[in-house]
Amino acid sequence: MAKDIQARPASRSVTLKDVAAAAHVHVSTASRALNPATRNMVAHDVAERVITCAHSLGYRVDALAASLRTGRSMLVGVLVPDITNPLFSLILGGINESLHAHGYYTIVADVGGEQQNQIDLVEALIARRVDGLILATAHRNDPVVCHCLERNVPIVLVNRSESTQRAPAAVSDDMLGMKLSVDHLVDLGHRRIAHLGGPQNISTGYLRRLGFEMAMENHGFDRADLTIETAHAYTRQAGHVAGRALLQRHPDITAIATANDLLALGVYSAVEELGRHCPGNISVVGHNDMPLVDMVQPSLTTVRIGHREMGIEAAKLLMRELRQEPGARHNVVLAPSLVTRSSTAKPAPGESWVLRPDATPATSPAG
Amino acid sequence: MAKDIQARPASRSVTLKDVAAAAHVHVSTASRALNPATRNMVAHDVAERVITCAHSLGYRVDALAASLRTGRSMLVGVLVPDITNPLFSLILGGINESLHAHGYYTIVADVGGEQQNQIDLVEALIARRVDGLILATAHRNDPVVCHCLERNVPIVLVNRSESTQRAPAAVSDDMLGMKLSVDHLVDLGHRRIAHLGGPQNISTGYLRRLGFEMAMENHGFDRADLTIETAHAYTRQAGHVAGRALLQRHPDITAIATANDLLALGVYSAVEELGRHCPGNISVVGHNDMPLVDMVQPSLTTVRIGHREMGIEAAKLLMRELRQEPGARHNVVLAPSLVTRSSTAKPAPGESWVLRPDATPATSPAG
Repeated sequence: MAKDIQARPASRSVTLKDVAAAAHVHVSTASRALNPATRNMVAHDVAERVITCAHSLGYRVDALAASLRTGRSMLVGVLVPDITNPLFSLILGGINESLHAHGYYTIVADVGGEQQNQIDLVEALIARRVDGLILATAHRNDPVVCHCLERNVPIVLVNRSESTQRAPAAVSDDMLGMKLSVDHLVDLGHRRIAHLGGPQNISTGYLRRLGFEMAMENHGFDRADLTIETAHAYTRQAGHVAGRALLQRHPDITAIATANDLLALGVYSAVEELGRHCPGNISVVGHNDMPLVDMVQPSLTTVRIGHREMGIEAAKLLMRELRQEPGARHNVVLAPSLVTRSSTAKPAPGESWVLRPDATPATSPAG
Repeated sequence: MAKDIQARPASRSVTLKDVAAAAHVHVSTASRALNPATRNMVAHDVAERVITCAHSLGYRVDALAASLRTGRSMLVGVLVPDITNPLFSLILGGINESLHAHGYYTIVADVGGEQQNQIDLVEALIARRVDGLILATAHRNDPVVCHCLERNVPIVLVNRSESTQRAPAAVSDDMLGMKLSVDHLVDLGHRRIAHLGGPQNISTGYLRRLGFEMAMENHGFDRADLTIETAHAYTRQAGHVAGRALLQRHPDITAIATANDLLALGVYSAVEELGRHCPGNISVVGHNDMPLVDMVQPSLTTVRIGHREMGIEAAKLLMRELRQEPGARHNVVLAPSLVTRSSTAKPAPGESWVLRPDATPATSPAG
């Protein structure tokens, strides 16, 4: 094996100078000939000779040295809150697909697994001369966005937006998503509908809650009287805790429109723990349509978001920034859709909970 | 906003020379003082003065220029077959966590979303001067591994190994995993146990099948008589097709030990389609314990693999390679464990399928 390696030329050490010498041209001519963008500045036969020499010598473009010359690294940094969350890996898949097509590669920094400050992380990426950054981590008012703008680094937000709209973002229409949830539950006949919200310092949590309020108002409910509980994180555990609190405090609700699938799955366990049944006496709607929620029991009715498409759109927005294309800065807002499965059903007729302290059971065995 | 940006010093342009001048020391002294590895070569008060000056001037290390000097980029390339598969994002999470702790960042290349040849992809990463590569994509005999060895780029394999063991790998004990599956089914009383295997050109597919064969042989079954079906890919769809074929050809089997959770979920739909019931008359075991298989119906008995730990171990192996630590090259093989849930049960007494063309139903209503 070692012999095999030694027998090959150490191709890393072949320089542009070597190629120029072999082709009997000046280094600058060789450089122009090898760059598709400048090749037409060189006579056709000369360009062919240079390319043949480069190929036979095993010359490879040194992207690092090239980036020092051009000031571009062809690297984009991506900050994700948790790479092991399937939503973000779907978004990342879309970003990668789109950026690779333009010759860019991504450096992924996982904020979740990272103890250090996000700004240090951004500095480490800038030190590696990333041409731009895509943040999937933004809070509604985010110091990291502020820092990137001060450092004059092109940035794009994905999935979560800032309330000040200082940077372009590719997001889902979170308010429309909640309208789809609420309309579906109202169509089924539900009236006592609650919202289990996500963290309110993140746009998805804030806008989905707002979307719930607006949609309920559209159906004639008083915004001041709505039943809303907020989970402290987008996790099954947080959904379980908040869902249990919601069901205990408001035993008469017949449906919960949640802000996220993991929260909905947490509600499933709370429903089971309290001896109730989904969808028999409580309907649950998720948000995201993450992988496998079609296979849980009951399969989850949820709002589908094109996460991969969102990643692709974020990459396109960043390309616009990098190329300094003319035209107004804009966001891309993708329309979600409702996927109806088995976790939602018509409310049971005359549904009224025995748990409710001030109510007589509607259907007692003796009645 | 624009005014705000202009008001700040352009910190990118502060050089080491500026810092040295401000601290009244030679550039080489400033360089030593700023590098934790060489700081002890400089008097303590001088080092402090340099650091203070660097801080007040907003000097930041230019990792790119530094990497041209040192020949190290502090970047590691990671090739994954499909970043949207939760297994690989868990592995990636572990790799990132471990490499970040050593000051490295990862460039992730998704082979699945990538049309170009994997070797071109590796070349693009080498052109960005990655210090090493971690491959989650290896086939049992992989031309990409061969290419990396020829190019003298340090590599480590993760999750999948090569049969020739040319590069260190962090993997799960795939054969042990299948032994756990088979032992569990035999303990429950199953005798007619089939294997639904994965692609045989990948170590996980090959070794899990081999593990099934060895485990069955240990229980006194003849290796030549085993019932085995192979899926062409690790997907629900492929599992559905292969699972249906298996159940139709061998209607008397009472349990299936699959090579992967997605295959097991595919078997679920095949079982349902054929009017059978899991675990009532067919037990199913998965492999991986991927996120949410505890919530599918029935919750999946499966072999748990520490994917995050596997990523951490792969990163450690790569650090050994990068530091050229003494000692024999070795693999890290993690021990999996069985997680028993609701998809496995004792076989029904006298279970014998009416579907079986050559058999009389064991329990006819008239009998």
